Amino acid sequence: MGGKTAKIKKLRRKLKKLRGKVKALRATRPQTVPQVSPLAPPGGFPELPVIPGVRFAAIEAGVRYAGRADVMLAELAPGTQIAGVFTRSATRAAPVLDCQEKLGGDSSGGAAILVNSGNANAFTGDNGRTSVAVIAGSVAQMLDMPETRVFTSSTGVIGEPLPHDRITARLAELKAALDPGGIAQAAQAIMTTDTFPKGAGTEIGIEGRTVRIAGIAKGSGMIMPDMATMLVYVFTDAAIDQPALQRLVGRLTDRTFNCITVDSDTSTSDTLLVCATGTSGVEIGGPRSRSGQAFEAALEQIMLDLAHQVVRDGEGATKFVEVRITGASSDADAKKAALAIANSPLVKTAIAGEDPNWGRVVMAVGKSGARADRDRLSIRFGEILVAEHGWVSPDYREEQGAGYMKNQELTLSVDLGLGAGAATVWTCDLTHQYITINADYRS
Amino acid sequence: MGGKTAKIKKLRRKLKKLRGKVKALRATRPQTVPQVSPLAPPGGFPELPVIPGVRFAAIEAGVRYAGRADVMLAELAPGTQIAGVFTRSATRAAPVLDCQEKLGGDSSGGAAILVNSGNANAFTGDNGRTSVAVIAGSVAQMLDMPETRVFTSSTGVIGEPLPHDRITARLAELKAALDPGGIAQAAQAIMTTDTFPKGAGTEIGIEGRTVRIAGIAKGSGMIMPDMATMLVYVFTDAAIDQPALQRLVGRLTDRTFNCITVDSDTSTSDTLLVCATGTSGVEIGGPRSRSGQAFEAALEQIMLDLAHQVVRDGEGATKFVEVRITGASSDADAKKAALAIANSPLVKTAIAGEDPNWGRVVMAVGKSGARADRDRLSIRFGEILVAEHGWVSPDYREEQGAGYMKNQELTLSVDLGLGAGAATVWTCDLTHQYITINADYRS
Repeated sequence: MGGKTAKIKKLRRKLKKLRGKVKALRATRPQTVPQVSPLAPPGGFPELPVIPGVRFAAIEAGVRYAGRADVMLAELAPGTQIAGVFTRSATRAAPVLDCQEKLGGDSSGGAAILVNSGNANAFTGDNGRTSVAVIAGSVAQMLDMPETRVFTSSTGVIGEPLPHDRITARLAELKAALDPGGIAQAAQAIMTTDTFPKGAGTEIGIEGRTVRIAGIAKGSGMIMPDMATMLVYVFTDAAIDQPALQRLVGRLTDRTFNCITVDSDTSTSDTLLVCATGTSGVEIGGPRSRSGQAFEAALEQIMLDLAHQVVRDGEGATKFVEVRITGASSDADAKKAALAIANSPLVKTAIAGEDPNWGRVVMAVGKSGARADRDRLSIRFGEILVAEHGWVSPDYREEQGAGYMKNQELTLSVDLGLGAGAATVWTCDLTHQYITINADYRS
Repeated sequence: MGGKTAKIKKLRRKLKKLRGKVKALRATRPQTVPQVSPLAPPGGFPELPVIPGVRFAAIEAGVRYAGRADVMLAELAPGTQIAGVFTRSATRAAPVLDCQEKLGGDSSGGAAILVNSGNANAFTGDNGRTSVAVIAGSVAQMLDMPETRVFTSSTGVIGEPLPHDRITARLAELKAALDPGGIAQAAQAIMTTDTFPKGAGTEIGIEGRTVRIAGIAKGSGMIMPDMATMLVYVFTDAAIDQPALQRLVGRLTDRTFNCITVDSDTSTSDTLLVCATGTSGVEIGGPRSRSGQAFEAALEQIMLDLAHQVVRDGEGATKFVEVRITGASSDADAKKAALAIANSPLVKTAIAGEDPNWGRVVMAVGKSGARADRDRLSIRFGEILVAEHGWVSPDYREEQGAGYMKNQELTLSVDLGLGAGAATVWTCDLTHQYITINADYRS
């Protein structure tokens, strides 16, 4: 009797001890990768305007992933003008090189864009070129257009041969599925480590008529675009000639996709294509005309929205961070300083830890190569003045900074106090999740 | 009776279940920060030669840390020549600016170096300059030498005022403790997030006489030296004039400390001082003389050893990685490519995950800005040929790469196939530990 009571007591003590252990271990365990980024725009994929002259289809071809669409096709009406911006990587992928050659060609026969996820067809030698030629040739034949008007992109693992026959085997089905309302499925099909599909669209009135813009993007790691970003496709029914569209897109890229960074790494596949079908009949004038300015503002809004969505899906991101530099000697210097802050692992880990460690911001400005005078710079976290005249502000209290850092959306502002140069870039924090995702992505 | 037996059974089942839970949780929990880096040189701090003309002392002044030495003093004999290389950061710390002004002064009155850890005295405005002046003035008075010959460094948190009175209050004790054999204690006193003290030394014969070199370093995060590294102090009894020593140290820095990176962030306090007491009586000739070459080779070995020790103590490091570039258009291009690989978060996380993800090496070369031709570059992991002619090598098997990546010391070699440019840099992997250490270092 007494023995059993003692045993029960002993077992209960053991249980209590183990429960404490479980609690302690739970507190230290790494969180699992979230299904969807906590920074994803609320409300899911947006309702996008249908662009007359563009039809989409997506299909599960099993390039690498199973159980999800991994190929998208966009068919573009004859007369569609296409502008493109691509990675400047010296090791860019076969489809990127192919797209660059094809820009600016005769638009009378229509055009098409085919994108696969799961395999980047990058660093695949002759095999890579062959894959692009086979896919482009097959699409051209099926849609009855010149091969020179078929643009392809591939995204995913680098260095493995693209099983292009898995794609060409499904082209008839893709063609049959083409639908002007299929853009959401297309956005799904181009995802890799993305946790949500990215889209943005708008309708604007120009000269009493409606011009529509809709775009999709993918990307969440290997993000520090250089001349372009991951994969982005924007469609509009505006009428604008190719050289003008190309100039406009180049200009806007510098203010949008070239102002974001997740991890300072630049993809070998970065591709941005903007396609203007002209079906609205609205001719877009030069950059100083009223129509030119209205269209530029609308297109910039869409490109910036997509760029922000890429950062919001940054691998492991829990904070969306805007870095604003003012008072620099030049805009170029401002961008250098902004990117140095946005790419600093020490700044990004401090943000992840909700630590108002403004000393690391000072460090990043110092190493950036931008002209800076320690005794003139000031730092703000949101509206809070943290440091000025080369030292911590007398009114600043650490609790203020610590409180601010708990926000999910942060603004770090630095005024260099030297001139009128300014730049704003966007980034996210660097968390355990980034390591988890990338120490184990491929193998 | 039966009730108690049932209860015991029930408790045992609960215990079993909880034990399973504890086991599962243990498997997923992040490792705690190791006491000492797994990459630390075996055998602990090395036996260093005593340099005639140099005495060391270390003391616990409670600048920030408790229970450990945090201030070191080195006293240098009259005639000691001092060369220095410093961070190029635009936000460099007050002691760095002060050291830069003092280099090259009259050496007849002797010299001293005082270093504190726990506080970087960086971005501390006028207060920072005052602290340096107070410390240098007090040391000068106590050791009876001109204030212009007292060099100081501070390392630790940025942006907090240095409580210099805690240091000056202990100067008499420091002086009393001065000891030619005290270099190991000095190496301990300058540590911050370092997990082991770093030292290297050698003795060489020149013209039948002995020249000794001994150096110490600190640093494990905020490491991508730009002109210098964290804190490094090297002492020798060679006789060499200051301009010649300065030129030599500058040249060697480019091959040693400027070839390492932990996290691409550059400290505001990077300082390297090389002090030649001349007490050996061995005059070092020009760079082409026999003595000049012997001394240069020996000094390079010490500087490289210390630089490697800094990488081996990289925050969270579990792998020591040598990145070798050959066949580049120029040495500058080779270094660009090497640093792009060594700084890529995607390459570094792949190494942490023991993933032979050579596609990320291609990516890093591509973004580096170095001239590269995808179809000419080849990649080796150790001796294993992984990729050549723009694609994976036909003989390469993934298991080979995966097996190689399990090593603690790795060599990644890339031949660009373009010219004779070459560079080698050293780095470590990027692990969960780095995030743990840096998301929570200050607050």
